[in-house]
Amino acid sequence: MIKLANIGVIGCGYWGPNLIRNFSQIKDCKVLWCADLRDERLQHIKEAYPSVQTTKSYMDIINDKNVDAVAIATPVSLHFGQAKKALESGKHVLVEKPITSNSKDAEELIRIAEKSKKILMVDHTFEYSPAVNKIKEIIDSNELGKIFTIDMIRVNLGLFQKDINVVWDLAPHDISILLFLLRKMPLSVRADGVDFVQKGIEDDAHLALKFPDKVMAHMHVSWLDPLKIRKVTIVGNRKMLVYDDTAQNEKIKIYDKGVNLEKNSLPRDEYYSTWEGFKLVYRSGDVNIPRIEEKEPLSIMCRHFIDCIKTGKKPISNGNSGLNVIRVIEAMQESLKNNGAEVHLK
Amino acid sequence: MIKLANIGVIGCGYWGPNLIRNFSQIKDCKVLWCADLRDERLQHIKEAYPSVQTTKSYMDIINDKNVDAVAIATPVSLHFGQAKKALESGKHVLVEKPITSNSKDAEELIRIAEKSKKILMVDHTFEYSPAVNKIKEIIDSNELGKIFTIDMIRVNLGLFQKDINVVWDLAPHDISILLFLLRKMPLSVRADGVDFVQKGIEDDAHLALKFPDKVMAHMHVSWLDPLKIRKVTIVGNRKMLVYDDTAQNEKIKIYDKGVNLEKNSLPRDEYYSTWEGFKLVYRSGDVNIPRIEEKEPLSIMCRHFIDCIKTGKKPISNGNSGLNVIRVIEAMQESLKNNGAEVHLK
Amino acid sequence: MIKLANIGVIGCGYWGPNLIRNFSQIKDCKVLWCADLRDERLQHIKEAYPSVQTTKSYMDIINDKNVDAVAIATPVSLHFGQAKKALESGKHVLVEKPITSNSKDAEELIRIAEKSKKILMVDHTFEYSPAVNKIKEIIDSNELGKIFTIDMIRVNLGLFQKDINVVWDLAPHDISILLFLLRKMPLSVRADGVDFVQKGIEDDAHLALKFPDKVMAHMHVSWLDPLKIRKVTIVGNRKMLVYDDTAQNEKIKIYDKGVNLEKNSLPRDEYYSTWEGFKLVYRSGDVNIPRIEEKEPLSIMCRHFIDCIKTGKKPISNGNSGLNVIRVIEAMQESLKNNGAEVHLK
Amino acid sequence: MIKLANIGVIGCGYWGPNLIRNFSQIKDCKVLWCADLRDERLQHIKEAYPSVQTTKSYMDIINDKNVDAVAIATPVSLHFGQAKKALESGKHVLVEKPITSNSKDAEELIRIAEKSKKILMVDHTFEYSPAVNKIKEIIDSNELGKIFTIDMIRVNLGLFQKDINVVWDLAPHDISILLFLLRKMPLSVRADGVDFVQKGIEDDAHLALKFPDKVMAHMHVSWLDPLKIRKVTIVGNRKMLVYDDTAQNEKIKIYDKGVNLEKNSLPRDEYYSTWEGFKLVYRSGDVNIPRIEEKEPLSIMCRHFIDCIKTGKKPISNGNSGLNVIRVIEAMQESLKNNGAEVHLK
Repeated sequence: MIKLANIGVIGCGYWGPNLIRNFSQIKDCKVLWCADLRDERLQHIKEAYPSVQTTKSYMDIINDKNVDAVAIATPVSLHFGQAKKALESGKHVLVEKPITSNSKDAEELIRIAEKSKKILMVDHTFEYSPAVNKIKEIIDSNELGKIFTIDMIRVNLGLFQKDINVVWDLAPHDISILLFLLRKMPLSVRADGVDFVQKGIEDDAHLALKFPDKVMAHMHVSWLDPLKIRKVTIVGNRKMLVYDDTAQNEKIKIYDKGVNLEKNSLPRDEYYSTWEGFKLVYRSGDVNIPRIEEKEPLSIMCRHFIDCIKTGKKPISNGNSGLNVIRVIEAMQESLKNNGAEVHLK
Repeated sequence: MIKLANIGVIGCGYWGPNLIRNFSQIKDCKVLWCADLRDERLQHIKEAYPSVQTTKSYMDIINDKNVDAVAIATPVSLHFGQAKKALESGKHVLVEKPITSNSKDAEELIRIAEKSKKILMVDHTFEYSPAVNKIKEIIDSNELGKIFTIDMIRVNLGLFQKDINVVWDLAPHDISILLFLLRKMPLSVRADGVDFVQKGIEDDAHLALKFPDKVMAHMHVSWLDPLKIRKVTIVGNRKMLVYDDTAQNEKIKIYDKGVNLEKNSLPRDEYYSTWEGFKLVYRSGDVNIPRIEEKEPLSIMCRHFIDCIKTGKKPISNGNSGLNVIRVIEAMQESLKNNGAEVHLK
Repeated sequence: MIKLANIGVIGCGYWGPNLIRNFSQIKDCKVLWCADLRDERLQHIKEAYPSVQTTKSYMDIINDKNVDAVAIATPVSLHFGQAKKALESGKHVLVEKPITSNSKDAEELIRIAEKSKKILMVDHTFEYSPAVNKIKEIIDSNELGKIFTIDMIRVNLGLFQKDINVVWDLAPHDISILLFLLRKMPLSVRADGVDFVQKGIEDDAHLALKFPDKVMAHMHVSWLDPLKIRKVTIVGNRKMLVYDDTAQNEKIKIYDKGVNLEKNSLPRDEYYSTWEGFKLVYRSGDVNIPRIEEKEPLSIMCRHFIDCIKTGKKPISNGNSGLNVIRVIEAMQESLKNNGAEVHLK
Repeated sequence: MIKLANIGVIGCGYWGPNLIRNFSQIKDCKVLWCADLRDERLQHIKEAYPSVQTTKSYMDIINDKNVDAVAIATPVSLHFGQAKKALESGKHVLVEKPITSNSKDAEELIRIAEKSKKILMVDHTFEYSPAVNKIKEIIDSNELGKIFTIDMIRVNLGLFQKDINVVWDLAPHDISILLFLLRKMPLSVRADGVDFVQKGIEDDAHLALKFPDKVMAHMHVSWLDPLKIRKVTIVGNRKMLVYDDTAQNEKIKIYDKGVNLEKNSLPRDEYYSTWEGFKLVYRSGDVNIPRIEEKEPLSIMCRHFIDCIKTGKKPISNGNSGLNVIRVIEAMQESLKNNGAEVHLK
């Protein structure tokens, strides 16, 4: 078991510095390197973290025998090549979401990681968020009862990507949350999107996912909304839950609300001749706001990566979770191309 | 021109008493009658409005020569028959939304009304709301620029209907707002819904509408949500607008926000080899909350009905607007049956 | 015991019509009369409630032997004279808050009511509000522990009164809530106000009340605030509670939050040489939002009045509660005149 | 003029690390040293900023000739001694608020700084906040008209201080904002506080300040509130402004609301015989939310300090602003001791 994990970070754009910051705060790991093609990004890291070596060639990191693990935060199209080389050089690998740009590549990475007995982990940050874990606990306790619908909204103005559409950019977060909560793959998906700002790159999309047991999920992802919204509504037959990730406090509210069918002994109403012999009874009780631990999910994720390296245990967001998310997105992409037709997952 | 319009209200369930209350407050009209099959509803009206005659047979109203106009607030399936009889007996008619349960019936009502030269109006209440009219004014002034998307959410817990699904129940509001704002019919619709509580009656649906000029609208209507939400987000290429009808004040917020494409003179970034020769520039300015007149939309609607009766002018929400809404809903219903397939409007 | 209480309402300005509306909805009472000096107010009532007789002379009501009780909703300075005459004529009396314009008058009304064995009740509406009663229940259960502070804010723009200042106008609500919750009179008060809009009539005031057991209450009452705020924060040593009366739902939130003193075994910190041998431990748990019955407090108050008339039981907000509120306001008024000096209640 | 300012930070508790972080990001300055008595605090800094030297004796910093300026973030009682030594050793000095624990000391620091021609600046962070500067701009433009009241609320649960009460801890922020906005000292203050958790240390206080021209300000500062509130309401005779510093966006709202006195031609109302010959007319127009630059106030403050060192210009929050805040707090403290008596400032 290694005592101290030496890390190299590839890509210092938007997310890379967050990884460096978090890994730097972990006792039993050390950030040795970071790579980026842009001088000004490397300069920025040098000033903030003088002990981190910088390079324009990520191969310097992969070739350094002192490096135990690499974290890859480059554009999606580069993930596969970089992760493959790293695994083959005997490094543990953490890749930004989405793990690769297609499922074939993800499958290959999984195979290589298994063969080389290295950790392959994808940064599905929300799977480490205290709020999402609290929701999972609530669902697993059956407090909500049978789940009917999960409605997810993740919209704001920008940041428009130029190489991937809004589904590839934002939906991986919600899909990874969904698969994590439900522990199931959807049976089919449907996607409906439009490109307004950049031709050919959808910037607004509505997504529908059918799960087994008649669980329905919908997502609205958009780079075109005046408000920043990150909201999940889970409707169960016992209780309902709203998770607002932008709230400073009170992120999760559990509503003791519902509707029950009861035998109706009243005579039929002549006006409503189609009514069945039952009545609907509405329940509305207390609202509970559970306390959520205030901890940065990314920090928990980074610690988990180091922990998996040291103990050899399988990450929560492992290669297979990465692959599952890709399979769902690929199906959505296919639906997008086919004008919103339902696409079944194999 | 009649001085005083005598009104009969058919149906005293949820909405009827609101009509009676509003018509009672108008100087040049008088509520003569109300009809309902349920004794306790009639009793309720008798106590609140001693001067209103009550009956269990709506034909008493239609046969009363003193009655100038009837307002119909019964279940949808009864609208056509009652409106037809009323028009044929020479009454002006105001019908609750949706105007009828199919477009054929709506077309026939329009024909009869034209022939008998009577007012046929449908209670699309929101077309009279000061907030919706303010939004129309803002759109017409081109303050928002070219409209990209309109996202509408109308959800809450209940009231579950037993004879119609959530699309027929809630979507007419949003559709009538949309047609009113855009003055256009959609080219196609798509509907995706599920029935959880009552078998065969969808209680949660997501709806998509494609309009000319690449304007996209989406609606989420549901009887299954812990929160009461009535929200419309309109994204234009100049500004964006959010309308929250549940807000006590500050119903409309106009965001001076957007994204522009600009020629990019920077050298291409090697990491992002697919980037085009332009850059995206984000704008974020002030937010403005226009003052909205505080007036009950239903009261304005009732006054407009009386005004049309007296002057003979065509109502804003006339038979044709009623028909247009039905045509959209019928297309949605067809899509629902065909597993969400896109349905083009003829 | 009377079966049906006949009511006369004196004063049909802002509040009178609300009383008429609520009394009209109660089965075992009937509004016989209403009085106002203004023709247009009487006309307004006539239209809405054709069965109610109107008069410009309130003595018509007092002289009518069929009248069992009068409700007085006139300017404060008229309460005493009208209530006195009504009680002396054998009527039960409900008076708007504040009960009279000075405590001597209130005492006399109490004496007269006792002698004539009639109900004397003051309309402290909030003592009948489901939310305030829920708070009382929570306090009485000791869920909040020992109460430290109660902070009350009741501000908005207008309605500026011309005959009384903002303390006489708005503070009676908060004072009656406080006395109701704590079941105690304050030991002393302090008031600090300014007159901006109308010379000599304070439109903004801050009030402080010291209660036994070191309970402190503060009130901010103002006619000069852009927002309508009705908020009460109760800090106990176990839990804390916030009551927002303007919230459509979620009016009461109970915070499982607090701070405890614990013995501190750590060595003293040299920098902080004044520190004591203890440490402060912060608690922060769930938030609970109890369900509140949705019922108009005024309706409950009116029913309670009728119930007291019929059964002879003493009203919750009886003459003495009215007097207690006046005694507190008089002390505040004295403090206002003495530049905010502390005024002890006898 | 120095090119590069070398900084030493004394005190690495709650605020010190924020100063180190911000000074580290400024090009033309360098953090050479930090001092604290606690090993674990120094260790923490060493890890985050390996290039910063640490010491347990702040005299190491003052004796280092390479140090140009010191920033003092120690308990208030130590400010004077440390700042004095630093100034006398020829260092520029930035001191946390409040500048000293009494005005005599502040006056002496000002004298020493003047004599030694060094910068003496106090960290009134809010004077550098974009939101507060925007409010100042709005007030100076006379958009609000004549100011009536300023109401400030700064409450939350904890952090309880052990050496100073809540007035010394929290009120300096609001007082510095007030003096900055109004450019005037109050004529008198009044303070009313209670100690619940720690005997002898007020944890909840209400403060009143009378300014010239009948401007009234009130502050509620507390360590005992379940909610974190930082809110300022400014009522002018033209418009009103609410500043909510906890809002993520929309920190400032300007309400086009007010009340005007107009000549009243109506006949006097007999009920309201005290009414004057005027009427009150309420205005309620749009709400505007100006865009506020998103910049950390502390970063702007640190840059201003470096800028003043380099150019010799007088800081915005100079020794005199520090002294003025102390004078107000001392008067409040005197009022606290005298049971809330009004205390005039000399």
